[in-house]
Amino acid sequence: MKKDVALGIDIGGTNTAFGFIDREGNYLTEGNIPTAKHEDINDYLKELYLEIEKVLDPIRQEVNFVGIGIGAPNGNYFKGAIEFAPNLPWHDVIPLCDMMKEYYPELPVYLNNDAKAAAIGEMIYGGAQGMKNFIMVTLGTGLGSGFVVNGELVYGHDGFAGELGHTIVSPNGRQCGCGRSGCLETYVSATGVKRTAYKMMAKYNYPSELRSIPFNEMNAKIVSEAAQKGDMIAINTFKYTGKMLGEALANAVAITSPEAIFLMGGLAKAGDLLFEPVKDHMEMNLLKIYSNKVKILPSKLTKNVAIYGAAALVWKELEK
Amino acid sequence: MKKDVALGIDIGGTNTAFGFIDREGNYLTEGNIPTAKHEDINDYLKELYLEIEKVLDPIRQEVNFVGIGIGAPNGNYFKGAIEFAPNLPWHDVIPLCDMMKEYYPELPVYLNNDAKAAAIGEMIYGGAQGMKNFIMVTLGTGLGSGFVVNGELVYGHDGFAGELGHTIVSPNGRQCGCGRSGCLETYVSATGVKRTAYKMMAKYNYPSELRSIPFNEMNAKIVSEAAQKGDMIAINTFKYTGKMLGEALANAVAITSPEAIFLMGGLAKAGDLLFEPVKDHMEMNLLKIYSNKVKILPSKLTKNVAIYGAAALVWKELEK
Repeated sequence: MKKDVALGIDIGGTNTAFGFIDREGNYLTEGNIPTAKHEDINDYLKELYLEIEKVLDPIRQEVNFVGIGIGAPNGNYFKGAIEFAPNLPWHDVIPLCDMMKEYYPELPVYLNNDAKAAAIGEMIYGGAQGMKNFIMVTLGTGLGSGFVVNGELVYGHDGFAGELGHTIVSPNGRQCGCGRSGCLETYVSATGVKRTAYKMMAKYNYPSELRSIPFNEMNAKIVSEAAQKGDMIAINTFKYTGKMLGEALANAVAITSPEAIFLMGGLAKAGDLLFEPVKDHMEMNLLKIYSNKVKILPSKLTKNVAIYGAAALVWKELEK
Repeated sequence: MKKDVALGIDIGGTNTAFGFIDREGNYLTEGNIPTAKHEDINDYLKELYLEIEKVLDPIRQEVNFVGIGIGAPNGNYFKGAIEFAPNLPWHDVIPLCDMMKEYYPELPVYLNNDAKAAAIGEMIYGGAQGMKNFIMVTLGTGLGSGFVVNGELVYGHDGFAGELGHTIVSPNGRQCGCGRSGCLETYVSATGVKRTAYKMMAKYNYPSELRSIPFNEMNAKIVSEAAQKGDMIAINTFKYTGKMLGEALANAVAITSPEAIFLMGGLAKAGDLLFEPVKDHMEMNLLKIYSNKVKILPSKLTKNVAIYGAAALVWKELEK
């Protein structure tokens, strides 16, 4: 008997990764293409289709391909469209579900915000199993979030709820890709860490290997590795990042009072370097009634959580 | 046939008001007692009981008293208790439902946060009828809020969600009754307006009748009346209040993306003085995807909305 599989696609600002996953969470095969180089959405989709077919070919006879789930920045679940995503090459409104259906007319296609997809993945396959109220924070090029309340994802009246990364935490602060200033993701994200490293070089006199790296060659991984080796500029960069996130989470807790907050993505791999200042500054800023109640946890899906989430969306919809 | 009536009780920092309301929203009779003067919760409940009985007496033969709903600051719906309310005379944990049942052992008693009760009232009797996603903001001595998502109140895992008034909007800002600094309600509330009036007197040289009033005799109503007469200190006080609220609402929209935000309570009666700067500053701070989508509305329940909400809680529970 052929095994049912769903295709989960995670569209990031830099890269697009996808995988075929079965109902039990077995990861069968995967592929990826660059996102940023495709100015034209049609070129992008054509390359994506060819890569999907290439990856599917060796297993095509053994599986029953049942549906496509997509996680993308500003992905609107209700409309099946990407709308005004600041970190993607295509602006305006992209009716992605309809466009994918031109390649796969026989399959259902579901779209969600990449972070909401990650939240669904965590809820179905990961550490949030059984939780009714939690927050997923994805730390990639930007900062995404998915809020789960009463066991359901919060979509809001238009499908666009859960943009914690675009709450303004510092009025007139850092310029953001969204056209405004002071958004949380300008501080707490891979690019935020990079920016903060230079703020710390300006502030402190500590010697640091980071001082020999130009801005255009710096990235969060370099800063993280330097911090692991005791570099004081890098360590203070993570402290500041954790403080900004901890303060923002304290305010988010006051709104939805979750059981746990999951952190995933590249920055979350920095472990205690990030988690400790996040916990400390969240607790310092919590209203008394929330003290020592909210867990800050790493995602239990250590790999491809957004792909799992996108695929999980398919299973959830098919079971309706 | 006797008419079924519920008792709705709204416990505020200064005053406690209650009313008997039927299923259709007819307001039969009402009463009130001061809250602040009762250091001992037992004295308070005794006076409240006597006042309820006094008010109930003339209609007792015509009605069937079916239940009690209570709205109170930090009222925990799950536990039926008030926990650590900074604006009430009683701190620690007050098991209010159990204590009320000593007076009314035959009746069900339900407790909720006063602002969540207001949200339920708006949803059942007011302008939020038919809305699945909205926010209720109550502007009294403090700032309360009730978030409705997917048609359900957001309680969080512990019943304490929806404390927008205790999100920190200005780190190291104004001292708050909760023991922290910079909470939204220190800027946006009756007491916040009073504080801001003195900030404006310090900042500007405009002549103002407010300059002859000592801090201890000032209140938001005086400031509002002065603003209506064109007093520039009072007008700037409302502009600043609206700016602080508008910015905070922009961040709340990024989390739950509501169809509308309702403002109720004393300050909301200032009308355009407050609503215009709130709308302007919310829009100025919204991520593009939310622009011109979110309505800022006055509560349609112009009177006793928290009492309606508390009573509505009874009907909702009885229908389960």
